[in-house]
Formats: sequence, C-alpha cells, structure tokens
Amino acid sequence: MAKKRPLILVTNDDGITAPGIRTLIEVMNSLGDVCVVAPDSPQSGMGHAITVNDTLYCDRIKVAKNEPQSEYSCSGTPVDCVKMAVNEILKRKPDLCVSGINHGSNSSINVIYSGTMSAAVEAGTMGIPSIGFSLLDYSLEANFDHCREYVRKLAEESLKHGMPEGVVLNVNIPKLPKEEIKGMKVCRQANAHWIESFDKRVNPLGREYYWLSGEFVNMDKGEDTDEWALKNGFISVVPVQFDLTAHHAMKDINSWDL
Amino acid sequence: MAKKRPLILVTNDDGITAPGIRTLIEVMNSLGDVCVVAPDSPQSGMGHAITVNDTLYCDRIKVAKNEPQSEYSCSGTPVDCVKMAVNEILKRKPDLCVSGINHGSNSSINVIYSGTMSAAVEAGTMGIPSIGFSLLDYSLEANFDHCREYVRKLAEESLKHGMPEGVVLNVNIPKLPKEEIKGMKVCRQANAHWIESFDKRVNPLGREYYWLSGEFVNMDKGEDTDEWALKNGFISVVPVQFDLTAHHAMKDINSWDL
Repeated sequence: MAKKRPLILVTNDDGITAPGIRTLIEVMNSLGDVCVVAPDSPQSGMGHAITVNDTLYCDRIKVAKNEPQSEYSCSGTPVDCVKMAVNEILKRKPDLCVSGINHGSNSSINVIYSGTMSAAVEAGTMGIPSIGFSLLDYSLEANFDHCREYVRKLAEESLKHGMPEGVVLNVNIPKLPKEEIKGMKVCRQANAHWIESFDKRVNPLGREYYWLSGEFVNMDKGEDTDEWALKNGFISVVPVQFDLTAHHAMKDINSWDL
Repeated sequence: MAKKRPLILVTNDDGITAPGIRTLIEVMNSLGDVCVVAPDSPQSGMGHAITVNDTLYCDRIKVAKNEPQSEYSCSGTPVDCVKMAVNEILKRKPDLCVSGINHGSNSSINVIYSGTMSAAVEAGTMGIPSIGFSLLDYSLEANFDHCREYVRKLAEESLKHGMPEGVVLNVNIPKLPKEEIKGMKVCRQANAHWIESFDKRVNPLGREYYWLSGEFVNMDKGEDTDEWALKNGFISVVPVQFDLTAHHAMKDINSWDL
C-alpha cells in the first residue's frame, strides 16, 4: 500500500469482550490500523471518571485469533483507557477514536453519564477526531448488523474532513430492521432528565440498601432533537462540546451583586 | 420566624468528614435549613459516574454534635448522593444545592472529571439552583477561612435571583491570604487539557501496573478565562451548561455526505 493507513483507536464502556466493540473493530479494520484499549469489565454509567487513588493494570491480550488489531485490556475506566492508549501505548496520535458500540442509549442527557461518550470526549480534548456510537438495545445479544454501514460512513467522513475543533460526535442508532432506518440526522441534545425511584431492600444482616432505578423524562417537543430523530426512525448525530461555558448566561450572572 | 427558611442540600466528593464540606455546612446553616447527603469516602475524579450495577447504602449519621443540619452518609458517587437526596430523603425540592468546598482545583477542563461539579450539575438537571465550590489547595489541612464570605455571597445571590435555566456555577477560589483576593470574576472555561505520564511499576508478583500522573496544559492566553482570573488573584465564577450540543458545529457536520 502506497498510502499510509490511518491509525484508529477503539474503546468502549461495556468491556473489551462485549459484542458491540467487536462490531466496531471489524468495521475499523477495513479502514485502518486498529488498536483496541478497552476496560477489562463493564463500566456503564462511569461518566468521565478517572482512577486517581488506585493502580491500573493494562495487559496486551488477544480476544480473537486471526484478526489484525492489537488489543489491550485495562482495569480502569473508559477515560483511563484513552489516556493509557494515547500517552503510553501508541507511538503516535491516532487519526480517529471510536467508542462503543454501546449496548443501550446515550441520547440527550445520558451523554453526561455515559462512559462510552466520556471516552470519546477525552480523545476530543486531546485533539483527536472522535465518535461515540450507541445502539438502543441493552441486550448482550443485540443485533449490530444494521449499524455497520452507518458506522463506516461516519468514520470515513471524519477521517476525510477531520472534526470541528472542540467537538466530538454522539451517534445513537435505533433498534430497527435495516430497511426501516430512514438515514442519519444531525440533531441537538433533547432537554430531558431522569426521575429516580430508589428500590429499597433489606440485606440478610438487617441493613437497608438501595438500587438506583430511574425513569427517563423527555420535556422537549422539538423536532430537531436526538429523541425525536430516534423515535422517527433516524440515526441521531449530535455534535457535542466540552467547553461547558454557558456563554449566554454570563451577562445574567454579571448583573448579580458579587 | 415568619418567612420560610430555604432548604439547602449540601454535598461534595471528598467525603462527608472532609474539612471543606464542614466549612460549607457552617455557612449554609446561617442561610437556611440544611440537609447533607455526601459520600462515605473520597470520590475524587469520579466525574458524572452513577452506581448502576451495585447496591447503595445511605445512613443517617451525626458527624458534629450540636449542629442543626441533618446528615446522611452514602456509599455511592457524588451524583448518586444528589439523586438519593432529592428522590428519597428530602420531602421537597431544595431551593439550593451547594457542592464542595473541594480540596483542589476544578477550573477549566477539570470540570468534566470533577465529582464536586458533577454533583452540582446533577442538581441542575433537576432544576435546582446549584453551585460547586473548589479551593486551589489539595491539602486536607487547607485553610478555608477566606472562602466563607464569597460562598455566602454567591449562595445568597442564587437564592435571591435563582439560576438561569440549564446553568450551574463552577466557583474556584485561589489559595491566597484574604487581603490578597481581588474579588469575584465571571469567566469562561479556559481551553486546557491534561498530558498524562504513566508511572509504571512492578508489583510483588512481578506484574506491571501504573499510576496515572498528568501535567495540566493551559493553551488559552485569553484574559477572560478562569485560569487567568485565578492566576491574577480573582475568584473565578464560570456558568456551566449541561446541554452539550455544539450548536456552532451543526452546519459543518450537515455538510458531510451522510
């Protein structure tokens, strides 16, 4: 090959053996040289957590024989994996980082809880074009077949155009037969939140404990949101930023007597 | 008292017995009825993590005698604490949530790793005016005396004006003698990131492990940033949003061949 193949970092939050990441690796192998650095166990809901008070293990492994990617299993969070990959394992900055495919939605406010998206954001802070992918199916037996062509298309376009500065993509894919998917739609994050109901139980020693258990509430009727797109058969593509400054609110706060 | 006192939720990420939260509780007791729901152990760098695959304990405790606040110690993350407080413990939505005072900086990009700020953001998603406070001193023996008047002022103004919708405040306080503090400054988040250097060691069994150890790099020369303010003796106040949509990038991504 005359042209240099792009270097692609693959990670996720469901763990290195999850079916979602195996699909992602398969597609990326057709686009470039792939290095996988992913958690050794499920890390759902880890958000942007990093491991500051504990040690990290990171071992080279081989999950699947006869596949070209190099693979590392890391004891840390998804964000740790990205830091480890870029600063310790890879010899040069990757041309693209892809995270997922998550087993379950990371649309709207879920972006802030998501280990999948936080890994993508972490790569974004390092100036690496980066995309997080999620399928709206929590099952470990989820069918990722219909994701492939869209994952490839987005990766190709990112490699071609690069990413606008300070931006990563949050891509959610509906659980639908291939022929019912209407295409991709660039959207904004819907205004939604969770209302938690804690499931209180008593352990065998008589001590009360809880399971977190919530209800997702979408308060946004806009037809330009990711929730609308997903409900209407589209794949949602939300450009996400990590400059969290609410520039529009600065005037307001400046009017306070501080 | 004729007027109803405000209900104030206090949390942090350094744990319920950390000196920083004790200072915050003391100030809040002079402004309203205080409920503390905070982690039972340090949770630094937990970002917006939530506990989805494990149980949660939450016990009523009394850290300090003769103080009016109610206190709950929770086995979860800072975000879990806020969810637990609002959905399980409190009888009504609090009028204000304050988180901290963190032992160490949460300025610029640190906002996304910070358990302190993620707790504040979580309360913000529930429509609760919310502020995260951090002192630029990691020591457990840090002196919080000079923080009191600014913490009180910001809490009072938030109770008076409410918070712009979808916004929480990220407040960082320099480690300076009181007389050297020049006041508060409403700022934007500086464009900065971390470059990690992993400290590789070998455990007694011969297996390699790592400690995460990074260098903070500020790439932003603007004089309207939180980093500039802190370096120049000001307390930085950054309005932070949790709609992460990069609206300015939508046109760009829409030009891709998707």
